[in-house]
Amino acid sequence: MDIIKKLEWRYAVKKFNADKMLTEEKLEKLKQAFNLTATSYGLQPIKLLVVQNKELQKELVKFSYGQKQVAQASHVLVICIEKQIDQKFIHDYFARVQQIRNTSDEILDPFKGALVESFSKKEREEVRVWATNQAYLALGTLLTVCALEEVDACPMEGFQPTSYDELLGLDKLKLTSVLVLPVGYRSTDDMFATLKKVRRDLNESIIHIP
Amino acid sequence: MDIIKKLEWRYAVKKFNADKMLTEEKLEKLKQAFNLTATSYGLQPIKLLVVQNKELQKELVKFSYGQKQVAQASHVLVICIEKQIDQKFIHDYFARVQQIRNTSDEILDPFKGALVESFSKKEREEVRVWATNQAYLALGTLLTVCALEEVDACPMEGFQPTSYDELLGLDKLKLTSVLVLPVGYRSTDDMFATLKKVRRDLNESIIHIP
Repeated sequence: MDIIKKLEWRYAVKKFNADKMLTEEKLEKLKQAFNLTATSYGLQPIKLLVVQNKELQKELVKFSYGQKQVAQASHVLVICIEKQIDQKFIHDYFARVQQIRNTSDEILDPFKGALVESFSKKEREEVRVWATNQAYLALGTLLTVCALEEVDACPMEGFQPTSYDELLGLDKLKLTSVLVLPVGYRSTDDMFATLKKVRRDLNESIIHIP
Repeated sequence: MDIIKKLEWRYAVKKFNADKMLTEEKLEKLKQAFNLTATSYGLQPIKLLVVQNKELQKELVKFSYGQKQVAQASHVLVICIEKQIDQKFIHDYFARVQQIRNTSDEILDPFKGALVESFSKKEREEVRVWATNQAYLALGTLLTVCALEEVDACPMEGFQPTSYDELLGLDKLKLTSVLVLPVGYRSTDDMFATLKKVRRDLNESIIHIP
């Protein structure tokens, strides 16, 4: 198992095999990996929606600029961000720290206070950008784990978040969708699967500062 | 080898073992993984700086809000974004596609034209945000590959990009730093290494839409 070979095997699937479903075990790994991804301050301002409903998937195609992968895929993962990162959100995080690590208030309070203050000063848009960055980080984790597990995927920025949010009832959950990731297995007749990967030479991507 | 166990092993290192260096082989894997990360349209608006110079690393501490990991780490990876995503940048990408895949102009031209037009309409700030998102995606890839390779890391958003850019001469390279990732090996006396991971319950992070 060489991770580099697996990353070379990975590509943005253009056509999924609609009959081949992810096993529960594979899906469980993706869910766990998403939950274990690093996030800024460990705050996890993101949630993962797992859509597994062919009718709904078909409907999502028209809000995905016609990209059929959304309908064909075994599951459509939708990475969402929290709409409300407020004082309660940060307090909930520290309650979790206390519960899991049994850390004393004495140790936690200064950091909690600083974080609450820092976020109270941020504009709503600034917090949205910050949370969106964490969604991209999680996408990187998911794509790498997919490659490792030989699960195919097609990361999508091109979709209509407001229509997704409406159709999936995200408003009630105080979430908004930021990235879409259909997962499943490539179709044997996806001609893109055999195309050579286009990447810069390594010496154009990497700069050594000795 | 279970990726979930590896992701659980990973944590944001507070103290590195300054004497333990990454092998060339490990470093090569991280470089390859960075270059293989997915990016929007495959455009790779990112570069990776590899700093391996103890004097320079020490200097970077004061531009990293005093975080000593930057000095202790085996290598400091700095994920940068391109400052100029212009027509030439997009043309260069398509030249690469042509060279690697031997695709005809006839096939490439419509997509090339659409991409050039789309980027010409974007504000400078919009392009910066787009490229920054790709840097976070690459961070997710790198952190996952680090975990898999049992390389320790500490992702950092908290640093002074303009000072980094100046010290590392990034202006001349038309790059700006957006994320810092010291890599190496955890110190045996980093008390954070043994703390339990704080994560939401899986059923709070994942929502199934049946």
